[in-house]
Amino acid sequence: MPNLIDLTHTFTDDMPVYPGDDCSKLYQSNFIKNDGVNDHTIQSGMHVGTHMDAPLHMVEGGALICEFPVDKFQGRGVLIDARGIDVIDALLLEQYDIRQNDIILVWTGWDKKYRTNTYFKDWPIMTIEFAQALVDLKISLIGMDTAGPEMDESFPVHKTFLPNNVLIIENMSNLGALESVKNFIVHAYPAKYKADAAPVRVVAEVQ
Amino acid sequence: MPNLIDLTHTFTDDMPVYPGDDCSKLYQSNFIKNDGVNDHTIQSGMHVGTHMDAPLHMVEGGALICEFPVDKFQGRGVLIDARGIDVIDALLLEQYDIRQNDIILVWTGWDKKYRTNTYFKDWPIMTIEFAQALVDLKISLIGMDTAGPEMDESFPVHKTFLPNNVLIIENMSNLGALESVKNFIVHAYPAKYKADAAPVRVVAEVQ
Repeated sequence: MPNLIDLTHTFTDDMPVYPGDDCSKLYQSNFIKNDGVNDHTIQSGMHVGTHMDAPLHMVEGGALICEFPVDKFQGRGVLIDARGIDVIDALLLEQYDIRQNDIILVWTGWDKKYRTNTYFKDWPIMTIEFAQALVDLKISLIGMDTAGPEMDESFPVHKTFLPNNVLIIENMSNLGALESVKNFIVHAYPAKYKADAAPVRVVAEVQ
Repeated sequence: MPNLIDLTHTFTDDMPVYPGDDCSKLYQSNFIKNDGVNDHTIQSGMHVGTHMDAPLHMVEGGALICEFPVDKFQGRGVLIDARGIDVIDALLLEQYDIRQNDIILVWTGWDKKYRTNTYFKDWPIMTIEFAQALVDLKISLIGMDTAGPEMDESFPVHKTFLPNNVLIIENMSNLGALESVKNFIVHAYPAKYKADAAPVRVVAEVQ
């Protein structure tokens, strides 16, 4: 049996949303008693819960999430330990072996604040130089256990990753479970939405 | 590089829905020009496009899709060639080597009719005996390239699979791409929704 680790927040009716965004809804809309079956309905933007940004999120005419072939979404994983660091800079990368097509997961531990009123306040951010270094290394995806790589709402870090087809996984969970794992593969196949982003179930497969 | 095959329909604003169900919407709701970023909004039931049913869909008090550990969603794949068969019965299974925890994909070719007005009419169905035989073999998931395993709206085939924790993947696509593939793993990690079902990106990894 493969050893799989789930790195995804559960999507519920009361999901935390980025400040200013509309609330999401996920509620039961059909009932066995009345309708013969149970069903649920979702109403949500794409940037809620564990999700993946495609270039179109920030780039006019950029690629949709459904346009990437699925091999974009599987790769060798590298866990970057960024616990206790407020500003995550390129220097931190020097101690890691990062290769083309890797999937980089930045572990801050901030997911412990998910569903509290401090999650969207002063979270650890990445510098443009950190992003550019990863772009230069030709990584495939970048993931993090915060609301995003930056708080600056001109989004310079997004705008370093996305035009270079480094897709961004935000609001990850449980990265600490990888602390003592030496080698793992990341599976992060997003819902195939014709959209700028989509929900994604992220799974690490221990090698 | 892994050889991955995508088995998922793209979710668009004009998705075909099961007869009688509300239409889904997936539309751009934020625009870089006005809002600084692009975003999309979805409004949809769970049983649209390529999706996975959990027991709660048909079983009062049954498990939600978010309650299964992720190793439920990866397994050895077996492609059942059911092209040209209107009623898919247990006899068909005799020629296949099916093992515990396998993920069974039933290829009818019906996905070619997706987005036409015949997709939801007279599609190939499975018998209760077919479902029970697979339950007895302790498979993990059953997938198909039709709207579901049956047309009978008392859902006896769903009600054979689901109480036995065989989850059902409906509206799959592109199963013909596996015709000449001897060994493959299926990755079918659904969105982690607190719901009776969820969208899923299904990927076959050729071994």
